[in-house]
Amino acid sequence: MSGTRDIEALIELMAKLPGLGPRSARRAVLHLIRKRALLFTPLADLMGEVAASARECLNCANVGTTDICDICASEKRANGQLCVVEDVADLWAMERAGVFKGRYHVLGGTLSALDAIGPDELRIPKLVDRVTSEEVTEVILALNATIDGQTTAHYIADQLEGRAELTSLAQGVPIGGELDYLDDGTITAALNARKKL
Amino acid sequence: MSGTRDIEALIELMAKLPGLGPRSARRAVLHLIRKRALLFTPLADLMGEVAASARECLNCANVGTTDICDICASEKRANGQLCVVEDVADLWAMERAGVFKGRYHVLGGTLSALDAIGPDELRIPKLVDRVTSEEVTEVILALNATIDGQTTAHYIADQLEGRAELTSLAQGVPIGGELDYLDDGTITAALNARKKL
Repeated sequence: MSGTRDIEALIELMAKLPGLGPRSARRAVLHLIRKRALLFTPLADLMGEVAASARECLNCANVGTTDICDICASEKRANGQLCVVEDVADLWAMERAGVFKGRYHVLGGTLSALDAIGPDELRIPKLVDRVTSEEVTEVILALNATIDGQTTAHYIADQLEGRAELTSLAQGVPIGGELDYLDDGTITAALNARKKL
Repeated sequence: MSGTRDIEALIELMAKLPGLGPRSARRAVLHLIRKRALLFTPLADLMGEVAASARECLNCANVGTTDICDICASEKRANGQLCVVEDVADLWAMERAGVFKGRYHVLGGTLSALDAIGPDELRIPKLVDRVTSEEVTEVILALNATIDGQTTAHYIADQLEGRAELTSLAQGVPIGGELDYLDDGTITAALNARKKL
């Protein structure tokens, strides 16, 4: 590759982003250089700011630019509901849906015997603390519908039994989903949880 | 989406990169925040530097951090060969192959009646100048094997006739290519240009 070392180094770093490889990193960098004023300079500035200011919320582990995130800081969100998610990306997905008005707790993963991740590697002790200290009435387990996710949900349910009402997201046919394309497990779950019209 | 405005703005800008959409931009930003010391801070710093220093070579339009790129500045590359490419990405691809030892000329696109791109929108006048002033003996037309690329190659060949030897990249079966997966045009070209063993 031609060009100078900085550009090559930039392409190498960009190629480490998920979803980009060496070829798309090169395309991205060329695109940036062509759109310097509109895209490259603003992106570089913003990256510097966020790299300096981004941090995990000390309470729920959401990502933000303050020690306590906007959601934990908002009194409006203290409605007694606590939604437990695996990952910040899941929290953001819930927020995009815009329907949940309580607070979150990000575990940072799932229990996994294979990867030697036990309750202390996740933020489960902190969750138990919060359920007591924040007067939580309902804990919504919004973990992924995977084996590890469901194992973790069962473990948390055991830990929190009697301290708050425990619920989990409904399983069934996704909105817009076509039966023909759904897996057997989803159809089984949807049939078992069928509702009266 | 939760988090603060800077993070949301960063995701929005990242989503404008080719190859990234809103979802992969969110994943990339979360990945960056998790790998702050190893990836995010170095990337932000480097972006700032490259955004400030990147420029087009005044001679060949390659991208670098100096007014005259490394290749044009190197006396070793003044071997009388000039390789004409459509785009900086093509130049980089040629350099990765590492076989060409001359200089380049980046056109910045192809002639296109539909998009109203004529010879003056490309860097064809500059190419004609360079062929004279840099004592070029051979012009290698390494344009893409598309209709617009080949039209442009023919136009350039007309302009440069008699001033230098004109060659173009060979067309045929790519290395590692399987006949069964090749299009008819490639097989026809490969057969017509068959060589004696």
